[in-house]
Amino acid sequence: MLRDPSVKYRPFQPINLPNRQWPGRTIDKAPRWLSTDMRDGNQALIDPMDGEKKQRFFDLLVRIGVKEIEVGFPSAGQTEFDFISRLVRGGRIPDDVMVQVLTQSRRDLIERSFESLEGAERAIVHLYNAVSPSWRRIVFNLDEAGVKAIAREGASILRDQAAKYPGTDWRFEYSPETFSTAELDVSLEVCTAVMDVLRPTAERPIIFNLPATVEAATPNIYADQIEYFCRNIPNREAAVVSLHTHNDRGTGVAATELGLLAGADRVEGCLLGNGERTGNVDLVTVALNMYTQGVDPGLDFSNIDEIVNTVEYCTNIKTHPRQPYAGELVFTAFSGSHQDAIKKGFAAQAQRNDELWDVPYLPIDPADLGRSYEAVIRVNSQSGKGGVAWVLEQDKGLKLPKRLQAHFSRHVQALADATSRELNADDIWSVFQQTYLTPARFALIDYHEQQDDTHRIFAGRIACNGDERSVSGRGNGLISSVIAALNESYGVELDVADYNEHAIGHGAHAQAAAYLECRTPAGRTVFGVGIDADIATASVRAVLSAADQAWAAAA
Amino acid sequence: MLRDPSVKYRPFQPINLPNRQWPGRTIDKAPRWLSTDMRDGNQALIDPMDGEKKQRFFDLLVRIGVKEIEVGFPSAGQTEFDFISRLVRGGRIPDDVMVQVLTQSRRDLIERSFESLEGAERAIVHLYNAVSPSWRRIVFNLDEAGVKAIAREGASILRDQAAKYPGTDWRFEYSPETFSTAELDVSLEVCTAVMDVLRPTAERPIIFNLPATVEAATPNIYADQIEYFCRNIPNREAAVVSLHTHNDRGTGVAATELGLLAGADRVEGCLLGNGERTGNVDLVTVALNMYTQGVDPGLDFSNIDEIVNTVEYCTNIKTHPRQPYAGELVFTAFSGSHQDAIKKGFAAQAQRNDELWDVPYLPIDPADLGRSYEAVIRVNSQSGKGGVAWVLEQDKGLKLPKRLQAHFSRHVQALADATSRELNADDIWSVFQQTYLTPARFALIDYHEQQDDTHRIFAGRIACNGDERSVSGRGNGLISSVIAALNESYGVELDVADYNEHAIGHGAHAQAAAYLECRTPAGRTVFGVGIDADIATASVRAVLSAADQAWAAAA
Repeated sequence: MLRDPSVKYRPFQPINLPNRQWPGRTIDKAPRWLSTDMRDGNQALIDPMDGEKKQRFFDLLVRIGVKEIEVGFPSAGQTEFDFISRLVRGGRIPDDVMVQVLTQSRRDLIERSFESLEGAERAIVHLYNAVSPSWRRIVFNLDEAGVKAIAREGASILRDQAAKYPGTDWRFEYSPETFSTAELDVSLEVCTAVMDVLRPTAERPIIFNLPATVEAATPNIYADQIEYFCRNIPNREAAVVSLHTHNDRGTGVAATELGLLAGADRVEGCLLGNGERTGNVDLVTVALNMYTQGVDPGLDFSNIDEIVNTVEYCTNIKTHPRQPYAGELVFTAFSGSHQDAIKKGFAAQAQRNDELWDVPYLPIDPADLGRSYEAVIRVNSQSGKGGVAWVLEQDKGLKLPKRLQAHFSRHVQALADATSRELNADDIWSVFQQTYLTPARFALIDYHEQQDDTHRIFAGRIACNGDERSVSGRGNGLISSVIAALNESYGVELDVADYNEHAIGHGAHAQAAAYLECRTPAGRTVFGVGIDADIATASVRAVLSAADQAWAAAA
Repeated sequence: MLRDPSVKYRPFQPINLPNRQWPGRTIDKAPRWLSTDMRDGNQALIDPMDGEKKQRFFDLLVRIGVKEIEVGFPSAGQTEFDFISRLVRGGRIPDDVMVQVLTQSRRDLIERSFESLEGAERAIVHLYNAVSPSWRRIVFNLDEAGVKAIAREGASILRDQAAKYPGTDWRFEYSPETFSTAELDVSLEVCTAVMDVLRPTAERPIIFNLPATVEAATPNIYADQIEYFCRNIPNREAAVVSLHTHNDRGTGVAATELGLLAGADRVEGCLLGNGERTGNVDLVTVALNMYTQGVDPGLDFSNIDEIVNTVEYCTNIKTHPRQPYAGELVFTAFSGSHQDAIKKGFAAQAQRNDELWDVPYLPIDPADLGRSYEAVIRVNSQSGKGGVAWVLEQDKGLKLPKRLQAHFSRHVQALADATSRELNADDIWSVFQQTYLTPARFALIDYHEQQDDTHRIFAGRIACNGDERSVSGRGNGLISSVIAALNESYGVELDVADYNEHAIGHGAHAQAAAYLECRTPAGRTVFGVGIDADIATASVRAVLSAADQAWAAAA
């Protein structure tokens, strides 16, 4: 690569499209969807699907709500033919689903394709031939008239075969293959020739599929090509313009979206972007992109994990953890500031009266995909107090006061720094227990309290470094009476700065958590936490926990 | 998802951009590149990189030719601080590379950031604060004036800190964070305020990074935002406009490309698309997309496998097999028609006099990335003759005539159908041997030949079903004399339709391959193949192989 690439590669020539309209438009309705998972997707697998996997994939597509499914290339092999034929005759195709098969433009292959669909209620036969200059020159040794003749001839055979099987409602799709690298006027001429043979109408339109067989330019160019085609195809209302993008330049989704802005009616692709080389466009992403703009895609991804699992089983390809909407990490935040913002977003969402989704860093509610929130916040050395607090709240029901969050997160950070790995909920809980809940010096054995006219009186037994002693103290309330007892017996001095308590869970198993923030005579801030089935006992434990901290700080 | 998404989600509002220019432009020069692998990438890892991995990643980026590297968030933790500080003081930063660190707009954090860079020749300090309405409302409880004040205050601290360390050539980057979901005029106002403090010039410009913190709209909208910003920022020549896209909608690469068309100067991203959630934009894809358009990206990916290996080691994330340019399957064709076209493309490429790359289905020469061609064509049940022939030619040096390719591919297809898995070169070779090279009936023991006035005379010993016999025949040439001998002794009748022979390899170990196509009296076509160190013997073996086929066909 140290050499100049201009010797070997040329820039893609821009399209002359005066007054282009697509950049000013928005996508406001769903297209027709065609899944080519079982054809373009399948042919790109190291191990293509067997019949059992194909049936499973087909059933998944039906559940999602895909109404047009390209089920294979029946003339390519006996396995393909048999599967399609069985599918059609086995009655497994719902009434509102059309299957589609692909064929090259050769009489024997087209005939075989119709044969495979014998008995179908409705079906689409998809004819293609390559039209672009490289393919004409390198692969077929044909001129423009030659590729047009092949298309026209194929269309005639489609027409004649359809007449031979009148029991089926036949629809036709034609692809000027390698469209995105072909001269637009050649594609238009070939498509017009196909129209002349098949005579589509607005009621029975032909599908023109315009593939970016290999993605060869920035996606705005593809949109220009689609807009140009839509403007110039005669009898536009008798044509359904279909997009079929690949992802060689990583912009297959964008090309599809801009192509929809440019006027297309239909999208061909595969779930999770399977397909030749870099994959076909990912139907899940395109559909959910619409969904997050308030446009109903008409496809149901409310159980995204089922989709991921089935696709992985059938294709034997693992989903990337960063795959939009579907990957393991796409709703996960490790960064402290992200975690903090998400936490606030959820809280604001819960308080608002409308349903509008507005949570920082989450373009979609994970629950809409059947994902839980638990995975959203995970903790590593890049995390801050927000994430740690979230995990404790999700897992243990503890709602730490803000300054305690900051105090505790420093302990977690130290562990994360030391281990250089993600900390899971158990790690965090273990640090929390060790820091606040495991008596280092003062352990409560038992106690009772009583009230006289003016004061609360605490009397209890405490083990200090294992040495049990009876202690007592009086104060305005329980906490101050415990502090007084500790002061009297052990000389501990604590000044309460803040106190919080809340229930964890409800019913018979509910517990109470008490949080205490205190100052020591030396001006240090220490925190104590107590958890107990009894509210009062939780407070007592919190005082002992703070006393432990103070003792450790003084040591 | 069965409910109407418009209750919960709203469409992104289009940008009012009269006379937009970007859709008509092309990318004709490389931007400045900033890798944020060690910051945005690192903070999104389950297990963030330790010092050894960070150093390895840094060295990789330097080898690739990245000149601006965001090395971390020094105020976020001791590990980060120490690594950066060691990197700066350890003399591991080449003269032409600038390191960059990120900081929030708080005095203590900014001071700590400068501290970490103490002793650097040159460095970029990158300040950010969030400006969009959701963040203002939900996360910070601030109005527009509030976020502007934070930015202005941060900029003043930058200015003052820079004055405190005069030994370093300081550069500044400011991100109006969450730019893509903020009001454009708010972002412009905040950036203008930062300019007012830092007073950049064309010679010492400020970098304005405009992040799509969360991708929230189709990529044309981001381009509109960038063009709007570039048009309206005062003193445009004193600003470097930098793009920072994420991939939540799967269009991060497209947003970056359209953003470059819209006038940006710099691209921030990560190798192979690591980064928060769905990842930052993939620098490899953006750069190689330029490369395939003849534009030198200034980055060296000529050893893509080294890059994949190092990134996988450091991030502990596997590269997806369909990742553009870098995935295992992106130059692989299983489909027969694709394989055939690629084979013809390579042949045409070899014959042409120019270097222009034009091979169907391969947008880039795999050799430019240090990839071999061998992986390009792989065989499964969706493959055709082209792929099978290619594998035999690559692996065994056999150049099968076209009709033999078709004949043989049916045998391979049958095995692929039966096994439903990818066939490797050994599988194919084993089918080939079994079909053509393993004597089922006629095996050659030895022979000699002589020439009389008019004919060639063949005399040899042949084992027929294990039963050895001396045979002889005469003909116009060697082949016809062998056929005559078989006819006389065994009644085999063969009519030669085509004959080809070629050398395999060269020098002392060269072998010869002979291919024979014959008709039988019943009108069947049979093929024979012979391989031998001796040219003549290869022909004799080919005849016996064809006789075997004829016998099998008749049986």
